[in-house]
Amino acid sequence: MNRPVRLGSIVQALGGELLGPDVDVQRLSPIETAAPGSLSFVSAPRFARQVELTGASALVVPPMLAEAAVARGSCIVTDDVYPYFARLTQFWKALGTEAPVPGVHPTALLHPSAHVSADAVVGPYVVVGAGARIGAGARLDDHVSVGAEAQVGEGSHLYPHVTLGDRCSIGARAVVHAGAVIGADGFGFAPYQGGWIKIEQLGAVRIGDDVEIGANTCIDRGALDDTVIDNGVKLDNLVQIGHNVHIGAHTAMAGCVGVAGSARIGSHCTVGGGAVVLGHLSLADHVHVSAASVVTRSLSKPGQYTGVFPLDDNASWEKNAATLKQLHALRDRIKKLERP
Amino acid sequence: MNRPVRLGSIVQALGGELLGPDVDVQRLSPIETAAPGSLSFVSAPRFARQVELTGASALVVPPMLAEAAVARGSCIVTDDVYPYFARLTQFWKALGTEAPVPGVHPTALLHPSAHVSADAVVGPYVVVGAGARIGAGARLDDHVSVGAEAQVGEGSHLYPHVTLGDRCSIGARAVVHAGAVIGADGFGFAPYQGGWIKIEQLGAVRIGDDVEIGANTCIDRGALDDTVIDNGVKLDNLVQIGHNVHIGAHTAMAGCVGVAGSARIGSHCTVGGGAVVLGHLSLADHVHVSAASVVTRSLSKPGQYTGVFPLDDNASWEKNAATLKQLHALRDRIKKLERP
Amino acid sequence: MNRPVRLGSIVQALGGELLGPDVDVQRLSPIETAAPGSLSFVSAPRFARQVELTGASALVVPPMLAEAAVARGSCIVTDDVYPYFARLTQFWKALGTEAPVPGVHPTALLHPSAHVSADAVVGPYVVVGAGARIGAGARLDDHVSVGAEAQVGEGSHLYPHVTLGDRCSIGARAVVHAGAVIGADGFGFAPYQGGWIKIEQLGAVRIGDDVEIGANTCIDRGALDDTVIDNGVKLDNLVQIGHNVHIGAHTAMAGCVGVAGSARIGSHCTVGGGAVVLGHLSLADHVHVSAASVVTRSLSKPGQYTGVFPLDDNASWEKNAATLKQLHALRDRIKKLERP
Repeated sequence: MNRPVRLGSIVQALGGELLGPDVDVQRLSPIETAAPGSLSFVSAPRFARQVELTGASALVVPPMLAEAAVARGSCIVTDDVYPYFARLTQFWKALGTEAPVPGVHPTALLHPSAHVSADAVVGPYVVVGAGARIGAGARLDDHVSVGAEAQVGEGSHLYPHVTLGDRCSIGARAVVHAGAVIGADGFGFAPYQGGWIKIEQLGAVRIGDDVEIGANTCIDRGALDDTVIDNGVKLDNLVQIGHNVHIGAHTAMAGCVGVAGSARIGSHCTVGGGAVVLGHLSLADHVHVSAASVVTRSLSKPGQYTGVFPLDDNASWEKNAATLKQLHALRDRIKKLERP
Repeated sequence: MNRPVRLGSIVQALGGELLGPDVDVQRLSPIETAAPGSLSFVSAPRFARQVELTGASALVVPPMLAEAAVARGSCIVTDDVYPYFARLTQFWKALGTEAPVPGVHPTALLHPSAHVSADAVVGPYVVVGAGARIGAGARLDDHVSVGAEAQVGEGSHLYPHVTLGDRCSIGARAVVHAGAVIGADGFGFAPYQGGWIKIEQLGAVRIGDDVEIGANTCIDRGALDDTVIDNGVKLDNLVQIGHNVHIGAHTAMAGCVGVAGSARIGSHCTVGGGAVVLGHLSLADHVHVSAASVVTRSLSKPGQYTGVFPLDDNASWEKNAATLKQLHALRDRIKKLERP
Repeated sequence: MNRPVRLGSIVQALGGELLGPDVDVQRLSPIETAAPGSLSFVSAPRFARQVELTGASALVVPPMLAEAAVARGSCIVTDDVYPYFARLTQFWKALGTEAPVPGVHPTALLHPSAHVSADAVVGPYVVVGAGARIGAGARLDDHVSVGAEAQVGEGSHLYPHVTLGDRCSIGARAVVHAGAVIGADGFGFAPYQGGWIKIEQLGAVRIGDDVEIGANTCIDRGALDDTVIDNGVKLDNLVQIGHNVHIGAHTAMAGCVGVAGSARIGSHCTVGGGAVVLGHLSLADHVHVSAASVVTRSLSKPGQYTGVFPLDDNASWEKNAATLKQLHALRDRIKKLERP
C-alpha cells in the first residue's frame, strides 16, 4: 500500500504539529524496518535511541523527542503518539481504498420480509433471512449468512462466510472477520440415563456498538436469556464465548481464549491468548488475565492474574514435574523438620 | 420467544403433576431473572431458598419442594426436574418454530448421482457431491458443502457453512453447527531430508446417531482407517479431533478441546474446555478430565483428573513459578536435612 | 478406497525391491488392523515382532527385516520405510481419484480483471476479486473466497469455504483446508481514554511453496509489514497465527497452537498441539515445543522445551496445587532449616 502522501495533508486531517520540511512519504513502517520514504513513529522518550538509528524519512514523536527528531528530518509532534498512529493507519487505509458501491449483488438472496438499507453493500451469495434488518452503510461480504430476525447495525462490516444466527443482533460500526459464528447453540444437555437430553437454546446474542470479532470466533446464543457483548469489546480470532456470558464494555480478549457459560466478565478487562475462564464466574472491571492462564474462581479485585507452568528444557521440566506430584508430602516433611 | 402457554398443555405433552391454578406463562427463565410470566425450575431441595425468592409465575420442582412451591403459586412436580426442563425447552422451541418446507432451493447444486430424500430441506447455495446421500427429513442450511459419497442420516441438521468431506458419514438426528469441518485431512507427514512428505489421508470420518458438533469444530479423516465418533457424542465449539481418534458413546467435550491422533476415548467421558489429550492414548469409560488439563498418559481407571497451574496474582505467581524450577533441587535439600 | 493393486506396479512407480510373489493387495492398512489383502509397513527393526504377528498380505520393510518378512509372504524392501509409505499413500490416492476437469463452474464469479489460468479448476459459488491471480492447475473448491489482488500459486488446492484476503498470496502446491482464513486483520488497537482505537492492518500475508494449512486455521495480515510463512511449513487445524509472525521453512505446528503477534519462529521447528507462543519472541531453528506448553521467552538454542502441569487424580492435584502457592515460602523455610 505504497503511495506518496504529503506530511502536511496528514497534519491537516489528524492534527499534530509538523516540524521540518513538508515532504512526501510513501508508506508507514515499523521503526525497525523503516527506510527512506517511510513514515514511522516513536511513542516514548525511552526509545530516543531509535530516533537516531532509524532510516525513516519522517517520524511521529512526542514533544520530548521533537528536538532530536527534527535534527534528523521532518517530524509530526503530538502528545498521544500511539493513538495518533492508530488514526494514521485509518487515514492511510481510507486513501488507498475505494468506497464500495452501495447495492445488492444480483446473486444475494434477501427474504422479501428482510429490511436492507438502500446504502448497504451486499455481496455475492449472501443470504438474509426473514425479518432481518441490515443498517445504513452496513457491508456484508460474499457468502455471509444472516438468520431470520437478525440485525446488523449501521456501518458494520461482516467479512466472508460469517454466520449470524436467527434473532441475534450486532450494533453499529462492528467488524466481524471471516468465518465467525454468532449464535450457534450453547452447549447445554441434561444428563439422563447415561445419555444427554438437548436443552434447546432459546436465547440469542446481543452485541453492542464498535465491537470487533475475530476470524472463526464463536459466540453462542443463550439458553434462556441472551449472551451479551457490550460496546467496544474486541475479540481476536478463534475465541469461544459460551452461552449467557456477559462481557463488559471495552474488554479485549486475544486469540484462542475460551470463556465458559454464564461467566460475567467486567469492563476494561484484558484476557491474554489461550487463557480459559471457567463458567459461572465473575471478573471485576479492570481484571487482566495473562496468556494461557486458567481462571478457576471469581476475581473481585482489579489486577493482573497469572497461572502458567514455566517453560523449561524438557529434561529439567521432567524432574521438576515429577517432584511436583510430591509437593504436598514435601511440605509435610519440612513441617516435621521444623519441629525440634 | 415469548408466547402464552397454558401449564396444562405442558403437563399434557411432557407429563408431571400440575399443582395450583392452570395459568398461562409467557417465557422460560432462569430462576435468578424470573419475573411474572416466567416458568422456571428448581432442580434440588438444596435450592429451596430460591423457591421463596423467585419472581416466577410458576415452577418445575421435585416432589420435596412441591409444598413450598405451591404455597407461592402454580407448579409442575416431577422426579427428574433437569431432564424435564430440557424436554420443556424442546417443547417450547417447537411451539415457536414453523417446520421448514421440504424441498431443494433452486440455487442448490446437487450432483445428478446424489440421492436426496424428497422430504429433506436443502437451502440456498448448498453443494452436494457425486453419490452423496441425504436422508429423510435432513436439513442442509445455506452454503453447506457435502462431498462425494458422503452421507447425512435422517433428521440431521447441518447449519450454514458446514463442510462434510468426501466419503464421510453422519448418522441420524445429528446437529452440526455452522462452520464445522468434518473430514479435512489428518495431520500426517513423514520427515525426509529436512522437509516433510505428505501422507495422504485415505480414511474417512464415521459419525453415529444423535451426535452434536459445535461451530467451527474440526474432525479429521483417518490416515488409513477411519476416525470414529460413536452415538450420542456431544462436542462443543472449536474442538479439534485428530485422525483415527475413536470417541465412545455419550462422551461430551467442551469448547476448545484438542484430541491428538489415534487417541481412544471411552464412553460416558467428559472433557472440560481447553483440555488437551495427546495422541495414541486410551481413556477408560467414565473418565472425566478437568478444564484446561493436559492428558499425557493413558487413564485406565474412571475418575476425575486434573492438571492446571493454580491462578494467582501475578506477583505471587512469579515468585512461585521461579521457585518451581528449583523444585527437584529443593527435594534433595530436604532429603539432606532429613539425614541426621 | 479398496482396489486391487499389483505389488510390482508399486515398485515400478516408487522404487524398492520386491521379494516374494508379485501378488495383488486391496488396501493400505496400519500394521495392527492389517488383514489378508492389506499392504502394511514396519519402519524399524525394533518392531520385528509385528512382522510375525500381522495379518497383512504384504509388507514394506527395511533391509534388516527383509528376511523375516519374506519368510511369511511378499515384501517390498527399502531404506526409508516411512517416507516410502508416505509416497505410497500418494500413489494410492492418485489411483482412486479422477483428476478434476479444468474449467470454471458457471456459478463462479470471477472479477473481469482477475487472471485465472485456463487449466485451473474453479468450483461452484467461488468468488475471485479484482486483479487476483490463480495459477496453473490450482483448484478452488466450492464457496472459496479470494480477495482483490490475492494470488494462488500453481497446483495449490483450496478446500471449501476458504477465505484468502485482499493482497494475500499463497505459493505453489499449497493445500489449504476448509474454513481456513488467511488475511483477516491482525489484532491491533491503541488504548485511548478507556477504549480502543483500531490500528488498520495495512500489511498482507505471504505464504511460500509446499505449505499445508489446516481447517479453520487463521493467519492474520500484518499491521504495516507482512506476515510471512516460509516454504514447506505445515500447520494443523484451528491454529492461530498473529500479525507479523514469521515462520521459518519446514516448521510444523499441531492443532490449536496459538502464536502471538511478531513472534519469529525458526526453520525446522515443531510446536505440539495446544501450545502458545507469546508475541515478539524469537525461536531458533530446530526448537521443539511440547504440546500445551507456553513459550514466554525467546529460545536461542535448539532443543525440546516443555511446561505442562502434570495430570493427576483430582484429589492429589488439589493438594499439590494448593501447596504450590506456598512454594516460595517453603523454599525460605528450607533455607532457614539449612542454617545451623
